[in-house]
Amino acid sequence: MTMKVYLSGEIHTDWREQIIEGSKDLDVAFSSPVTNHAASDDCGVAILGDEPNKFWHDHKSAKVNAIRTRHGIENADIVVVRFGEKYKQWNAAFDAGMAAALGKSLIVLSQPDHQHPLKEVHAAALAVAEEPRQVVEILNYVLSGKLP
Amino acid sequence: MTMKVYLSGEIHTDWREQIIEGSKDLDVAFSSPVTNHAASDDCGVAILGDEPNKFWHDHKSAKVNAIRTRHGIENADIVVVRFGEKYKQWNAAFDAGMAAALGKSLIVLSQPDHQHPLKEVHAAALAVAEEPRQVVEILNYVLSGKLP
Amino acid sequence: MTMKVYLSGEIHTDWREQIIEGSKDLDVAFSSPVTNHAASDDCGVAILGDEPNKFWHDHKSAKVNAIRTRHGIENADIVVVRFGEKYKQWNAAFDAGMAAALGKSLIVLSQPDHQHPLKEVHAAALAVAEEPRQVVEILNYVLSGKLP
Amino acid sequence: MTMKVYLSGEIHTDWREQIIEGSKDLDVAFSSPVTNHAASDDCGVAILGDEPNKFWHDHKSAKVNAIRTRHGIENADIVVVRFGEKYKQWNAAFDAGMAAALGKSLIVLSQPDHQHPLKEVHAAALAVAEEPRQVVEILNYVLSGKLP
Amino acid sequence: MTMKVYLSGEIHTDWREQIIEGSKDLDVAFSSPVTNHAASDDCGVAILGDEPNKFWHDHKSAKVNAIRTRHGIENADIVVVRFGEKYKQWNAAFDAGMAAALGKSLIVLSQPDHQHPLKEVHAAALAVAEEPRQVVEILNYVLSGKLP
Amino acid sequence: MTMKVYLSGEIHTDWREQIIEGSKDLDVAFSSPVTNHAASDDCGVAILGDEPNKFWHDHKSAKVNAIRTRHGIENADIVVVRFGEKYKQWNAAFDAGMAAALGKSLIVLSQPDHQHPLKEVHAAALAVAEEPRQVVEILNYVLSGKLP
Amino acid sequence: MTMKVYLSGEIHTDWREQIIEGSKDLDVAFSSPVTNHAASDDCGVAILGDEPNKFWHDHKSAKVNAIRTRHGIENADIVVVRFGEKYKQWNAAFDAGMAAALGKSLIVLSQPDHQHPLKEVHAAALAVAEEPRQVVEILNYVLSGKLP
Amino acid sequence: MTMKVYLSGEIHTDWREQIIEGSKDLDVAFSSPVTNHAASDDCGVAILGDEPNKFWHDHKSAKVNAIRTRHGIENADIVVVRFGEKYKQWNAAFDAGMAAALGKSLIVLSQPDHQHPLKEVHAAALAVAEEPRQVVEILNYVLSGKLP
Repeated sequence: MTMKVYLSGEIHTDWREQIIEGSKDLDVAFSSPVTNHAASDDCGVAILGDEPNKFWHDHKSAKVNAIRTRHGIENADIVVVRFGEKYKQWNAAFDAGMAAALGKSLIVLSQPDHQHPLKEVHAAALAVAEEPRQVVEILNYVLSGKLP
Repeated sequence: MTMKVYLSGEIHTDWREQIIEGSKDLDVAFSSPVTNHAASDDCGVAILGDEPNKFWHDHKSAKVNAIRTRHGIENADIVVVRFGEKYKQWNAAFDAGMAAALGKSLIVLSQPDHQHPLKEVHAAALAVAEEPRQVVEILNYVLSGKLP
Repeated sequence: MTMKVYLSGEIHTDWREQIIEGSKDLDVAFSSPVTNHAASDDCGVAILGDEPNKFWHDHKSAKVNAIRTRHGIENADIVVVRFGEKYKQWNAAFDAGMAAALGKSLIVLSQPDHQHPLKEVHAAALAVAEEPRQVVEILNYVLSGKLP
Repeated sequence: MTMKVYLSGEIHTDWREQIIEGSKDLDVAFSSPVTNHAASDDCGVAILGDEPNKFWHDHKSAKVNAIRTRHGIENADIVVVRFGEKYKQWNAAFDAGMAAALGKSLIVLSQPDHQHPLKEVHAAALAVAEEPRQVVEILNYVLSGKLP
Repeated sequence: MTMKVYLSGEIHTDWREQIIEGSKDLDVAFSSPVTNHAASDDCGVAILGDEPNKFWHDHKSAKVNAIRTRHGIENADIVVVRFGEKYKQWNAAFDAGMAAALGKSLIVLSQPDHQHPLKEVHAAALAVAEEPRQVVEILNYVLSGKLP
Repeated sequence: MTMKVYLSGEIHTDWREQIIEGSKDLDVAFSSPVTNHAASDDCGVAILGDEPNKFWHDHKSAKVNAIRTRHGIENADIVVVRFGEKYKQWNAAFDAGMAAALGKSLIVLSQPDHQHPLKEVHAAALAVAEEPRQVVEILNYVLSGKLP
Repeated sequence: MTMKVYLSGEIHTDWREQIIEGSKDLDVAFSSPVTNHAASDDCGVAILGDEPNKFWHDHKSAKVNAIRTRHGIENADIVVVRFGEKYKQWNAAFDAGMAAALGKSLIVLSQPDHQHPLKEVHAAALAVAEEPRQVVEILNYVLSGKLP
Repeated sequence: MTMKVYLSGEIHTDWREQIIEGSKDLDVAFSSPVTNHAASDDCGVAILGDEPNKFWHDHKSAKVNAIRTRHGIENADIVVVRFGEKYKQWNAAFDAGMAAALGKSLIVLSQPDHQHPLKEVHAAALAVAEEPRQVVEILNYVLSGKLP
């Protein structure tokens, strides 16, 4: 039983690396968005031509990135969405909404002080974790039946 | 041609009333979440019993609210998502993600200083407006073919 | 906003009547299985001819009943499944599984001593109630935004 | 022609092992829920933190288990559901309902004295067997065309 | 509870009229193919121009008829397929296959001497009747819960 | 039996009026894109603000128009696509592709000298007509069973 | 580009072998029903127990066979349905109807004197051939672009 | 992460070869229609028999080609549609419409002077490029996260 796992959300800490490293003995195939912030912001104009207007600059990049992110979410069995400490992170919540509507198993990785504003997202999740280690433990349990 | 429009997001200003009032001569059926903040927060425990733990208090309410919000989104032709000035508003972005995944026509109502963090949501939208009046104008155009 | 509600499960008490009576001022359209136990058991052979073998006797009836129950579940916005005190009630759990797989909003009406064996069904539900009155309150809240 | 088979239901006898052993020469990929009863009951709190309330204790575990069981059912070609002699087994009937709604080929493994309460589940099945050996024979026939 | 019923198959006897007449007090909306044999055979060339080749003559008509028959089947809750005494009737079996694949409730109306060659179609049906009266009784039972 | 018909394509002749007038006694609900060329081209900037770049000017309008056209196509039973004598008409072919992928009954209205370049579109259609009168005759036949 | 091809229909001549042999150098994965007539007729009772009534004898077998045939059709890219000279062959037309409803590419292999009664099936097909050799040529062209 | 990319549209220049060559180090599986113009035009009659009428000559070929093109589009993650300088190219726009309706990531490769008539197709695309090199850069970025 191979599990395909998409790792969505916050790109400023090493939570993806922790999960991937912790799951290295499991039959899991991970995918994720481009996590290079500058490349992600500029891919549209870098490839398809400059835009003087910031809206269209961002629009072109968001659409090119969507080729990757939608593929990742649509092909995943499990979508893990991480909410970090900073920024608006509406793209993370947007991905969670897509995952829920597509019937994916949703795991949310968030911190206690975000509990109230995340209640609708949590309500759609099959697990709410606070630490990357817990996500590894879930994957390990789901695949092997073994508890930590 | 009747249009079913779901009005998602910010509940602290009268943007819904403006749109509904402005569209009163159009063949539109509006739906929306419960916009009474206190009722929305407490519906779960008020009906199904108290929870000492805030997580489960919120969880019960979020699920009861989901009965209404998912019905609204799944049955809509158009989903309008309003991002206001304050709060995390992850439920708004979550609704936008659901709408996009379900193939609904998405209209985002947001302000210019939120342009960058909303770029992924904007990229999935068929229109990005700043004023409720513009949403009315879109509905009027879509239904009657008339421009303001 | 009309809600279509299918009332599945236990047929030996008046819980359906309580919910329908309590919701008489709401914009709800209820449907349910045939609750006449004898008719439900014998409809197949009564219409399509006797079967000496009990398996096929039951099989013919179960399939004729399925014409009605699947129509009810597939067309519902909300599926309420009631587990009573007695009997195996596997058809109730089967209906709950169908409702979950079809993305319906599931409300379970069950008693506390069934909590553990119903945990998988509860986990798929948006509300777990113990009294028909609570289902009425949920419907009232979902439609009107008003708490009891 | 590889067949993916999910083995749902009763976890107290060796029926899964009998089927897997009997099918060892067939091109079948089996999956199943976690069958360690204690791990299955406690996985939620063991990984995500204790819950004093038994409802939420069970709820957390049921959701973590759902990551595995839904993956198994959704990816299966055939879902075998075994009803044993004891317990409520509503999760087995729930899985059967999901399998039916998702259009999976459903095989029910049950005993004669459960015939009447299982009639709705049997009516949705493509085969009703009493012995694990018969499930092996079905798999063998479906894959090789050979009868026992 | 309104039921939409599509009446497919044999067009040489008055079985449709019997069912419609017998169901006149029920909340059923019937649809059917064009049962004027000559019009059905020639509609393509009559409207879209002659074809010297019989294959294309028939092809044009079969496609124009498909506009009606697919609409009927796709919008039905119940598809009744009648196999008569004569002719190949492959279009009836084709309609039954479409109905089965679309998850419609299938009722087959056939005679005993066709039992063996219809076994695959019967296996996909929720009822196998021999007389139009029985179809009326099923519709009556499904809608009212009353047995004959 | 009501039929919902979407009239896509060429906007420079009165073919839509001919079909609507000719079908006035039939139970048909027609929809169509905005056929005011100037409004259709400028709706985006007129409502949502000017764009100096022609690409984004057109982009905004095309997306606002898509709210109406996708609603029309997705809700139609039949999609009629008219190819006229002039212009690229890629939007007409695009609509035909959407209709085909969504399983709609497609009727193409085109002229003989476009036969070869339209062969892939014709191959997906249930009827290929040259005159609006023929579309009326098809609708009349499909609804009433009567030939002209 | 691998093509999955299901070979449905007549089981009394070697048409399947001809197609498989002719396609041996192509990247095609074939599947088919059990073509051993006796095994196919008796698989149900041989595995699941005798039935004195011929209807249920056939019913049990038809359902066991459906596990294989539905898997084959649902997983195919192309469904080839062969109509032979004899028998009612309603299962072949039923399979064609399923294939059409599921959006599979349908190839019909039939003889000229069956043209009229097969017109509805032909109208749903992407190719109508008379010889197994032509099916091989289609597969070869579709995969390699080469004509015979 | 393997990407399946279908290359639709213009067949008179070497744009496909440029993209495939430029992507040779990426984990991409390309598919495309038959690009031999003569074979594509004549495949129907070459395999299935002559047609004196040009419409049916083209019809037979278009349907045989559809076996390949629909397989390519339905199985693709990304559909690239190239509009060249000449011809009507309605099949390209038709493919783009299918891709959009099926939720594929659409990349359009077109030239500036076609901007206005392609606005509806562009509005459905996640990227609009002018050079094959840009498509390669998008694929490289989507797969590796690296910008040119």
